[in-house]
Amino acid sequence: MKFDVVTLFPNFFTSGLQSGLIGKALGKNIAKINLVNPRQFAVDKHHKVDDKPYGGGVGMLLKPEPIFAAIDSLELLPKRTTILLSPQGSPLTQDILQTLVTNYEQLILICGHYEGFDERIRFLANQEISLGDFILTGGEIPALALMNGVIRLLPGTVGKLESLKTESFEHSLLDYPQYTHPPVFKNMHVPDILRSGNHKLIARWRQEQQIQRTQKRRPDLLEKWLKSDTY
Amino acid sequence: MKFDVVTLFPNFFTSGLQSGLIGKALGKNIAKINLVNPRQFAVDKHHKVDDKPYGGGVGMLLKPEPIFAAIDSLELLPKRTTILLSPQGSPLTQDILQTLVTNYEQLILICGHYEGFDERIRFLANQEISLGDFILTGGEIPALALMNGVIRLLPGTVGKLESLKTESFEHSLLDYPQYTHPPVFKNMHVPDILRSGNHKLIARWRQEQQIQRTQKRRPDLLEKWLKSDTY
Repeated sequence: MKFDVVTLFPNFFTSGLQSGLIGKALGKNIAKINLVNPRQFAVDKHHKVDDKPYGGGVGMLLKPEPIFAAIDSLELLPKRTTILLSPQGSPLTQDILQTLVTNYEQLILICGHYEGFDERIRFLANQEISLGDFILTGGEIPALALMNGVIRLLPGTVGKLESLKTESFEHSLLDYPQYTHPPVFKNMHVPDILRSGNHKLIARWRQEQQIQRTQKRRPDLLEKWLKSDTY
Repeated sequence: MKFDVVTLFPNFFTSGLQSGLIGKALGKNIAKINLVNPRQFAVDKHHKVDDKPYGGGVGMLLKPEPIFAAIDSLELLPKRTTILLSPQGSPLTQDILQTLVTNYEQLILICGHYEGFDERIRFLANQEISLGDFILTGGEIPALALMNGVIRLLPGTVGKLESLKTESFEHSLLDYPQYTHPPVFKNMHVPDILRSGNHKLIARWRQEQQIQRTQKRRPDLLEKWLKSDTY
């Protein structure tokens, strides 16, 4: 998967892409990331990328020209989509991540900016994605989240594919409680059943725990699960 | 605001905290961030922080001892809360960010890990927060998002407070379309009304646009807004 990220803050990404699983995946060329700064494409001598809004209001908006020029500069692959990261997009879900992994070989990400952007920039995007109903200083963290969520789904990234299958959201129930050594810690005990060796009972206990936990914490997810094919 | 972040990947955060508004806020000591690696508190000679799950299953779980020891090592302030970042938590919202800013002077963030963690770690947390219904490789990006969203709300961070007031989600409608120079770009025109100078008409147009856009993109938010005091 190739990512092109249009951002005023390319340095933001440096360390966030080096750690852990993502750093390893990039090292193995499972994914490639190209950071493009629209400031390089600003035409005036001050490399100006923002300007005042028409009609009044506080804050400076990203101008359209440098963003269009940055996008024009990219090498394009046949199966691609352009995503604008903004609080007005569809909230990101695991289904969206899975669809991106399945359908595309190039994801072009345009990072919004906390003070806003010229409306015409929207015409560059095939889709608009938000991280959720909260405000951040820009689209950089959402772009990082999207890349992280996509990269870990790529073949060769997560060592054991089974890890993916048993995770939260893939089948719309929250995960069951998990325990490791020691069996007793600060007077908190690992449940006996997990140490019983009876895998049938353990599987049943885990599913009961998933349902109870989802009911308690996220009844909306439980409702979806009850209506789904998985149930 | 003081943040203590318990993470196996402290280096992940380096560049993400240096850019833009957040870098400036940290430079001005509006916020302080202390990164703590539980690996430093692992007791065995291999600094082991994870182990196999009881009852079977793939993946390695974060062990409880190093996380408890990392938390024990922190200097505590009177008004604090401990937040576990995991996909099983409450999805982050602007209201949650605002509540954190209003009520606390210290946020202790425990980053979950994609393969899971020992259930007993939950007892350390006062609340559990998720970034949304998707899976990432760990709690680091959610912690970065939470810190970014909190820091920009702190006094002295966003230059013009008005910028905060007119944003998406603060009053549950999406933002209106914004335009800056040039008036015509690639045959796309800035709407005449925004260049009219009639601020009363502009304000009305903007609210109509907000309602239409929210209706189209996020009818769930419009419904909330219609029921709220703001309407």
